[in-house]
This record gives sequence, structure tokens and C-alpha cells, in this order.
Amino acid sequence: MAERGRYGRDEVAEILDAGLIAHVGVDTPDGPLVLPMAYARDEENLYLHGALANHLLNSGEGTEICVTVTHLDGLVMARTPFHNSMNYRCVVVRGRAYRVEEAAAKERALKLVTDHIVAIWDTSRPPSAEDFRATLVLQLPLLEASAKVRAGDPVDDAEDMAGDWWAGVVPLTTRFELPTSAADLTEGIPTPTAVANLAHRTPDTRHSS
Amino acid sequence: MAERGRYGRDEVAEILDAGLIAHVGVDTPDGPLVLPMAYARDEENLYLHGALANHLLNSGEGTEICVTVTHLDGLVMARTPFHNSMNYRCVVVRGRAYRVEEAAAKERALKLVTDHIVAIWDTSRPPSAEDFRATLVLQLPLLEASAKVRAGDPVDDAEDMAGDWWAGVVPLTTRFELPTSAADLTEGIPTPTAVANLAHRTPDTRHSS
Repeated sequence: MAERGRYGRDEVAEILDAGLIAHVGVDTPDGPLVLPMAYARDEENLYLHGALANHLLNSGEGTEICVTVTHLDGLVMARTPFHNSMNYRCVVVRGRAYRVEEAAAKERALKLVTDHIVAIWDTSRPPSAEDFRATLVLQLPLLEASAKVRAGDPVDDAEDMAGDWWAGVVPLTTRFELPTSAADLTEGIPTPTAVANLAHRTPDTRHSS
Repeated sequence: MAERGRYGRDEVAEILDAGLIAHVGVDTPDGPLVLPMAYARDEENLYLHGALANHLLNSGEGTEICVTVTHLDGLVMARTPFHNSMNYRCVVVRGRAYRVEEAAAKERALKLVTDHIVAIWDTSRPPSAEDFRATLVLQLPLLEASAKVRAGDPVDDAEDMAGDWWAGVVPLTTRFELPTSAADLTEGIPTPTAVANLAHRTPDTRHSS
């Protein structure tokens, strides 16, 4: 049978940690706008960053926004397309987003957003004052966060099971391939261990050793 | 060098056809709401469907909505995290969504949404009048649709290239695994060819023979 339902704080954290991008929705004078963005979280907040001029972040600052992170785990095919579904893990965070101004808090948030993908902040070129100045960081409290998960087989009506229609699941897997060095990389600079370790992993397991 | 930019009608169609789910944003009294949904398109419209009681579709009917489809193709790692990026293909469609009422148009839209994932409408249990009654379909014109694509290497500043920091790309690939029949499937019912053919393919190539 399928399990589908809402989950608590631990599932929210787990799903957010496994994700690479969020789809961020804001209201604009032209209606809602949804764009993909990098993100990170700590125990209290979710963080988004972009250029100072970023239209989405500027529209979202000080207003209600919605940040949605979805993992698609499989296609769920029932005897009837009207019962088709997807297996997925999804977190929706809603609330008012605020700009992070304080220097230490902003640096911490930017390190979190970088290392959320892969921990390379400490092995990259150290940030400059100009880097920080040119970057806008928003924080969104994790108070209104809910997780929804669907897993398992399709659920058909009894009368449909009597028929000879197929039903099942097609799993989906996302993996990192081998890293390719930039064409302009100086010869002999090694790939950081954290990056090399991604190869053949899934986003879900990228942080586990 | 990286290519990043906006593209036209063909790229919009190609990116929408490769996608499995969209992130749909609507305005609600509690602020924006963004949820993942199945979708399909024809030459003029994008289609969304759900149960009659679907909160998102009911909030979006007759109002401005935003439908965003994103493919994440790779992590782009620069010498400085402030130039990190992602390689992606993204389509954003904005506009007013309308309910599809006319029976033939509604059936056509529901077949499109089903077969967009994998063409199994014709080999599944034929729809009943109740199936149609219980399903809400919205259409969104593809007039305000834009595609954005980022591909290729990171772009660093000249002074950073002098340093010994690594830069490159970590590609991401999503594949369908072998289908698993439902535990309650009657013995001997074969997997439909269209479903069996998905195995080891990527969403991008699922419709090509």
C-alpha cells in the first residue's frame, strides 16, 4: 500500500538537506513568480541568496514567500491514469522573508548556502568585502514548514484490479557524474576531495561519508 | 565559457517536453503557495489537473499563476563560491489560468497530461464519466513563456585564475530504473512496452525511440 502523509520537523530537515535547489514563489505586481534557487538551512531558518539586484529576492524581501523543495522518486502507474501519481518527498516553507544585514550572520549564511551543495567554502578563494556587499541574503523562519511524502505502489479500486491492466512503479535516480575541470583551469590543480567524492553519489547521500 | 540566456518558442517546447513535474505558484490569502504538479502542453496551452477539491488549482482558477519547469544539469564550481552556479534549463510560464469545461477538450487535456509522462492512456483502463467529473483541469496559455538555460564552465575573474583554486563542473544525471510491478498485480499481466522502454533512459530521452 502507498504511504502518503504529512511529517514532522525531522523529515523537514532531512528533505531540505537532501535537496539541491528550491522553487521560490513570491507575489509581484504581475502575479506570482516562481524561480529555482540555491538555499540552505540551520535549526531556525532557511536562507536564500543572490545578487543585490535579484528581482525575486527584492520582490520577496519583507513579504510572504513560499519555498518548495521536491525530490521526485518515481512514477506511480495505476490501472487507470486517474489514479496515477508520483512518489516524491516535498517540503513547503511559507512565511515572511527578511534580509540578513549583520556581517557575521551574513557570512555564516553564505557559507551554509555554499556548503549545503558541497563543502568547498574553506577550500575556495576567501570572500572579499566586495563579494559580501554585492550579495543579498534573505532568511525565512522554519516555523511554517511542512513535509509531504508519497511512497510505494499505486492504489487502485477493487473493480479495476479484476481487469488485466498493468500497475507498478518506475523508480527515478539522480546521480553526480565525474567532475570535469574548467577549460581555463591551471594545469596541476587537483579536484578538491569533497568534489571528487560526489562522483556516482545521489544528492541524498552526498553529505554522508 | 558559459552560455546563459533567454531562448525562444522551440526551446520552451523542448524543455517542457523533457520535464516530469512543474512547480506551480498561486496567490492565496496566506501568501504565495508553490506545489509540484504533473502537466502537459500542446501548441497553445499548458495543462494542469487535479481532484475537484485541489486547493492549489481552485486558488489558481481564473487568476494569474506561474508554472516553472526546471532541469538541473550540473553543479558549477568557481574559484570563489560567489561565482558558483548551476547548469540548468528552466521554463517559466505566467498568465491567467482557466478551467477546461468542454468534455472533448477535457478528455484531450487529460490524455496529454497522462501521456506526457509516458504514453499509457491507450493501454490503461478506459476513463469513466465519474473519472472526468471528479477531475479539475486548468489551461494556461503559452503566450508569456520564457526559457532560461545555463551551460558550460564557471566564469571567474582574471585575478582569481592566478590562484590555485579548483574550478569545474559536476554533471547530474537522472535515470529511470527498471519498473517494479505492484504487489497486488495479477500474475502474468505484462509490463506495457512504453513503460518497459523507460528503463535506463533519462527524462529527456523518454519519448525518443
